[in-house]
Amino acid sequence: MDRILRINMTDRSASFEPMPKQYENRAGRWLTSSIIHDEVPATCHPLGPNNKLVFSPGIVTGTSSPTSSRISVGGKSPLTGGIKEANAGTGWGRRLARLGIRAVIIEGRADGFWLLKITKNGASFETADAWTGKKLSEVYPKLFERSGGHKAVDICSIGIAGEHRMPAAGICFNDQNARPTRYAGRGGLGAVMGSKGLKMIVVDDTGSDDVPVANKEVFNGGRKNMAAALTEHAITKPKGALNSYGTAVLVNIINEAGALPTRNFRSGRFEGAAKIAGEAIFEGNKERTGSELYNHACSPGCIIACSNTWHRPDGSEHTSCVEYESAWALGANCGIDNLDQVAELNLLCNEYGLDTIEIGGALAVAMEGGLAAFGDGKRAIELVHEIGRATPLGKILGAGAVATGKVFGVSRVPHVKGQNMPAYEPRAIKGIGMTYAVSTMGADHTSGYTIAPEMLGVSGKLDPLNPDKAELARNFQYATAFIDTTGHCLFIAFAILDIASGFEGMVEECNGVLGTKWTAEDVARIGKEILDLELDFNHRAGFTKLDDRLPEFMLYEPLPPHNVVWDIADSEIDQVFGQ
Amino acid sequence: MDRILRINMTDRSASFEPMPKQYENRAGRWLTSSIIHDEVPATCHPLGPNNKLVFSPGIVTGTSSPTSSRISVGGKSPLTGGIKEANAGTGWGRRLARLGIRAVIIEGRADGFWLLKITKNGASFETADAWTGKKLSEVYPKLFERSGGHKAVDICSIGIAGEHRMPAAGICFNDQNARPTRYAGRGGLGAVMGSKGLKMIVVDDTGSDDVPVANKEVFNGGRKNMAAALTEHAITKPKGALNSYGTAVLVNIINEAGALPTRNFRSGRFEGAAKIAGEAIFEGNKERTGSELYNHACSPGCIIACSNTWHRPDGSEHTSCVEYESAWALGANCGIDNLDQVAELNLLCNEYGLDTIEIGGALAVAMEGGLAAFGDGKRAIELVHEIGRATPLGKILGAGAVATGKVFGVSRVPHVKGQNMPAYEPRAIKGIGMTYAVSTMGADHTSGYTIAPEMLGVSGKLDPLNPDKAELARNFQYATAFIDTTGHCLFIAFAILDIASGFEGMVEECNGVLGTKWTAEDVARIGKEILDLELDFNHRAGFTKLDDRLPEFMLYEPLPPHNVVWDIADSEIDQVFGQ
Repeated sequence: MDRILRINMTDRSASFEPMPKQYENRAGRWLTSSIIHDEVPATCHPLGPNNKLVFSPGIVTGTSSPTSSRISVGGKSPLTGGIKEANAGTGWGRRLARLGIRAVIIEGRADGFWLLKITKNGASFETADAWTGKKLSEVYPKLFERSGGHKAVDICSIGIAGEHRMPAAGICFNDQNARPTRYAGRGGLGAVMGSKGLKMIVVDDTGSDDVPVANKEVFNGGRKNMAAALTEHAITKPKGALNSYGTAVLVNIINEAGALPTRNFRSGRFEGAAKIAGEAIFEGNKERTGSELYNHACSPGCIIACSNTWHRPDGSEHTSCVEYESAWALGANCGIDNLDQVAELNLLCNEYGLDTIEIGGALAVAMEGGLAAFGDGKRAIELVHEIGRATPLGKILGAGAVATGKVFGVSRVPHVKGQNMPAYEPRAIKGIGMTYAVSTMGADHTSGYTIAPEMLGVSGKLDPLNPDKAELARNFQYATAFIDTTGHCLFIAFAILDIASGFEGMVEECNGVLGTKWTAEDVARIGKEILDLELDFNHRAGFTKLDDRLPEFMLYEPLPPHNVVWDIADSEIDQVFGQ
Repeated sequence: MDRILRINMTDRSASFEPMPKQYENRAGRWLTSSIIHDEVPATCHPLGPNNKLVFSPGIVTGTSSPTSSRISVGGKSPLTGGIKEANAGTGWGRRLARLGIRAVIIEGRADGFWLLKITKNGASFETADAWTGKKLSEVYPKLFERSGGHKAVDICSIGIAGEHRMPAAGICFNDQNARPTRYAGRGGLGAVMGSKGLKMIVVDDTGSDDVPVANKEVFNGGRKNMAAALTEHAITKPKGALNSYGTAVLVNIINEAGALPTRNFRSGRFEGAAKIAGEAIFEGNKERTGSELYNHACSPGCIIACSNTWHRPDGSEHTSCVEYESAWALGANCGIDNLDQVAELNLLCNEYGLDTIEIGGALAVAMEGGLAAFGDGKRAIELVHEIGRATPLGKILGAGAVATGKVFGVSRVPHVKGQNMPAYEPRAIKGIGMTYAVSTMGADHTSGYTIAPEMLGVSGKLDPLNPDKAELARNFQYATAFIDTTGHCLFIAFAILDIASGFEGMVEECNGVLGTKWTAEDVARIGKEILDLELDFNHRAGFTKLDDRLPEFMLYEPLPPHNVVWDIADSEIDQVFGQ
């Protein structure tokens, strides 16, 4: 009973369609990118009536497979003007999967704001104007209460940023503890949702059946191999790196390597790095709560459990979770080394519905433009409140780093295709630079996390400064597109890249659910198919190889401490996808 | 003694170079576009150290040829990301020509702001920090006084907008009455000048010789034919349309045709059009000053004399000049029908150093985004003051219409290649729409003024709704590129398109100055050569035919009163330059 739910916001109509034959076996990113590719005119305005927003849970989402509760969201990005898939860990997608809904397609444009409720019986609307203009921590608890509680429903919503169609707006989902903290963050899909007049989607799977599994034996074998690999690998095992220190364990590692972008990418080393690192979060929590706090799972069924919680001096919860990217974006990249300030910025991004990476980038560019001093955390907090108040100044920052640079006349904007770079300096780590350059998503580490071999010794160990990375960047992007299709969290990659049975387990899980006979070769084939769809969309949207370039200043400005520039030949970049 | 003056702002050095052989006979737009094409890396950041700014007077500028005191300014545009030539009427370029300087090339980037003075003896610098942050009407009189008066010098300067590197910043030159009112306005070249740390350029031609004329007889014959045509044609003759009502004579004509973009291009007709038209300016002035005021020449030697002056109720001067484009951009496009408010907005753009078209567009988009009500002139004036105070809100508007749309989440932004459309609705006038689409400059009426045959019956009479305009758009752009090279004002086009001897006169003037034997065929050849240089630069900067498109909303939103959409096939557009 796989089906697609099509929502027309213009007249608030909803209809179920059978899953089209040509989309057989597609889910997650494969399905969102297929639908966007096939249905959205590539040159449409991202905030106009012809863009669409698509939600799709992964292939194994909703099953007992570990760490697989990702929901993919696709659309044409108002930040990059290209195709976008962003995904989040939450129980929301599991409920869709249990309702047999492979995708929700949002079309058209409504006046005002609306709440969409999806249940076993169909889809219904109610006005959501009364829910607008509020912090999400005010919205979610009340809406859970009204909707039967977190046992019955999960909630997807935009915040104030999305309501105002800000290109740095993400789409928020609740975590396992019903907190509005898990984001399909990048690329401004929250603005697309806002442009359609859709404020929130409540999914209630009461009365649903289990997700069908075509071959239970195959599935269970795969699932066990996957679980074993995750439990064994040093990065993903219980009390391992991620469970102890969260993703912010990377702060010290990347800083030591001279690749932690600092003060709007002026240096690869931040003197305050240790103060905002995962270890500092762990120790700080211990001091403030009196116990050693290991991390929790963001979504049902995750056995990595990498999400931290930062606590106030009095031991009460401040925010969850302070990811590496957020600690960096709102910390090192703004020259801020005060964890309480970083946590407050993190919290405010969650409250207002913002991508922490893009906002950290916008703040850093604004600091470069003279709006605040680097390191002034108090002022940074005020600036994010401006976004929450939707003032003109706030809207500048909410429009992202490139727009902020345009408004403040800043020529040093570290972006590709309009999306701010994440927390790895491409001048110091060439493979990730190549990934930023060619990714269909704009500068994005999650589209091909070459950091694994270039920094972490996962899947081999490569010299970060070695320029011969075209094949690496290509293969990682293909594999990632497949992982984003399974519904697994990308963090399974550490374990399955190093442990062959884990990789096989991932494929067998999919075969078990779908009844397919995929092998490792199909992983690469499907990954390539997804990238080809996305590249084709971007090509039709107007992108050329000249969009696959790092910003000019990185070509002539040497980065301390290694004093390296971006020196990869354009022809080398163009080899990644053979353009 | 033709030569080029090369200025390096980084170390404030200046050097004269002989005119390179390959640039022989080039001047004005031909020369600025040649130098930008040859010397500027097409993918550089427009506000970074690798962009250049080039000034060049036209071929006949500085001679006794009528209406020929244009100065071309070229660079990579921060608004479009492509090549840009903008030109202005002023005595400034005449003085350069008399000093034998065919081009001034500004390179590098200085800290602080500087004044460059060019005299017979060379170039010198002094700090200009004390001149910054002020209205240009405060700057120019004092600087004239300090520099020997308007008899000795003309001044080029950026305003506050350029100092802050706002993409809507123009470059200001004084008019014949020493007023800081003549702009190389479009494309944000003022921001490029600001990014280089160059505040102003004073040219003193004391002791210079006359501009050499290779064949005086040929030149004089051409000059007389040109003067006769201008004096004869109904549009350009004394007390003719332009001399009586200025360019704003077009308001009623274009409104009547249903092609006057109103309230951010929501309608082609403005109910308040007659109140801001050239006729209203003429009658208003008569009432307030007690006399029939015919217009004046903006620059030495102009016999069209189309520049008006608007007066306050007490008869004192308010602003000069209220062009058609400004009356439309700051009037109809914002729904404002009060001439005093439009004049005040016009004045403020001159004071702060802004392109009136882009600012009118940004205001209209901001109104669309809810920042003010259409028609609220008082609020519009406050908003332009925000630009002058360089507040964040002001900087949004100063970044132009597209940036304003991005910040305020507006999907209806009437632009091409990032530059706001001027005062002719492309849905109602297909040829100008085709010109907007393919122009190397972004949406720009002056790159190929097909309005002449489509609206004014000049050079034949064409149905504006007839879509067969590819050849027209091409030929007008070639001819225009040549006119922009001669140093003539584009307004000679009315006369020389209708009067063959005037056209021949233009060619003979050039032959007289240069000693060439050009014919009408050379006009088309040279025009094509200029466009080819510009198209090649834009291609290397990343533009494709997908950038040659009108905004999506014009394809599905019918424009009253004719209820027409933009329905020209893309393939037809692509025929203009055979891409």
